[in-house]
Amino acid sequence: MSEERWKKIEDRLALEDVLNAYCAAIDSLSDMDGLLACFTEDAVLDLGGINLPRFDGHAGIRYFFTQVFEDMTHHAHFISNFTVARMDGDTATCTAYVMGMGVARDGQSVLVYVKYFLDYVRTPSGWKLSRFAESGLMPLPESLTGIHGRD
Amino acid sequence: MSEERWKKIEDRLALEDVLNAYCAAIDSLSDMDGLLACFTEDAVLDLGGINLPRFDGHAGIRYFFTQVFEDMTHHAHFISNFTVARMDGDTATCTAYVMGMGVARDGQSVLVYVKYFLDYVRTPSGWKLSRFAESGLMPLPESLTGIHGRD
Amino acid sequence: MSEERWKKIEDRLALEDVLNAYCAAIDSLSDMDGLLACFTEDAVLDLGGINLPRFDGHAGIRYFFTQVFEDMTHHAHFISNFTVARMDGDTATCTAYVMGMGVARDGQSVLVYVKYFLDYVRTPSGWKLSRFAESGLMPLPESLTGIHGRD
Repeated sequence: MSEERWKKIEDRLALEDVLNAYCAAIDSLSDMDGLLACFTEDAVLDLGGINLPRFDGHAGIRYFFTQVFEDMTHHAHFISNFTVARMDGDTATCTAYVMGMGVARDGQSVLVYVKYFLDYVRTPSGWKLSRFAESGLMPLPESLTGIHGRD
Repeated sequence: MSEERWKKIEDRLALEDVLNAYCAAIDSLSDMDGLLACFTEDAVLDLGGINLPRFDGHAGIRYFFTQVFEDMTHHAHFISNFTVARMDGDTATCTAYVMGMGVARDGQSVLVYVKYFLDYVRTPSGWKLSRFAESGLMPLPESLTGIHGRD
Repeated sequence: MSEERWKKIEDRLALEDVLNAYCAAIDSLSDMDGLLACFTEDAVLDLGGINLPRFDGHAGIRYFFTQVFEDMTHHAHFISNFTVARMDGDTATCTAYVMGMGVARDGQSVLVYVKYFLDYVRTPSGWKLSRFAESGLMPLPESLTGIHGRD
């Protein structure tokens, strides 16, 4: 019972840490290893909710962010309202609000206010994202598909 | 003594959860039950600090947000700097910073940077807000009263 | 062992509390005592990463913020992505994302998206900042040095 109480708190903080690590990696515009370490091998990055493609597994995620890292000069993703929506021992679903922004080499800039929907699984090396989806909280700017929508 | 340590951490996270649930509800523009569940029956929503009226109890809060839900097409409230200012067993006072934004059906948009002042009480069904007040951190836009100030 | 688990969680929350207290103090534009209480006596506030000077100790920090408090009519610093990068018993290093904004008496306004790099030490009166540095996540506006860059 005490162990359960520990787990509830430690897991919650660990789940939030993974999301912060994801942001630090994508905002570094270079740390692909750190980025992939946040995801299970077969994780799905589904950007359909913001009118962008779906990417499957480390290979797909690497493909998308290789392009992003090349295209952008600045990237920043501010997390808030982190919430554990469901926790079931070794799987969890969380949501978060995100203010995401960036500047592209071609001069375009982008600013989005979105909600993340995050499925996690507990692995021997800690919690990892198994599914990552998002949808707009505010209207999405056209520059989002202008910058990231080449596929 | 150990129980006290547990309570301090669990309560803090639970208090933050209530605020996140409040935001999720008002940003859904539909979940009135989820919204009211964040407040005690006799809670006060005092928007005087941002030049809007004060609403009393579930009836008052329902009245205000019925209008808000009708008026808005988008709503997003990003919480940060959540702080437990006072914790006293079964009551607590917290503060938080909020970036709140929305788009109204009439085309107006609004963006505010405010501070929330939150009084909570512990109830049989968990912590609930008993008083909710806010004040501007940055100058408030005229569209705030343009959109919400009909009363 | 159990004590270690407690410490890990309690320290993490306490470290975040110090940063929130720092923001509350600088955003109050008046609470110099609350601000200095966040720092060790010999703390370094190094703003070189955003093209501003470095300030040493309580005297230096007081000097800088005396000017800031005089110059500004509004100030707001929204913290997110708080991360404990290193924790070593009585010292710790954390990072956080910050959206900082303000309005100056001379009419200029400023908005920055930066990352804080925070060194802490545990003292008899709790965790305090021993080194505070920051760098831009997004391009910095010229008004930043226009408002704060007099030195």
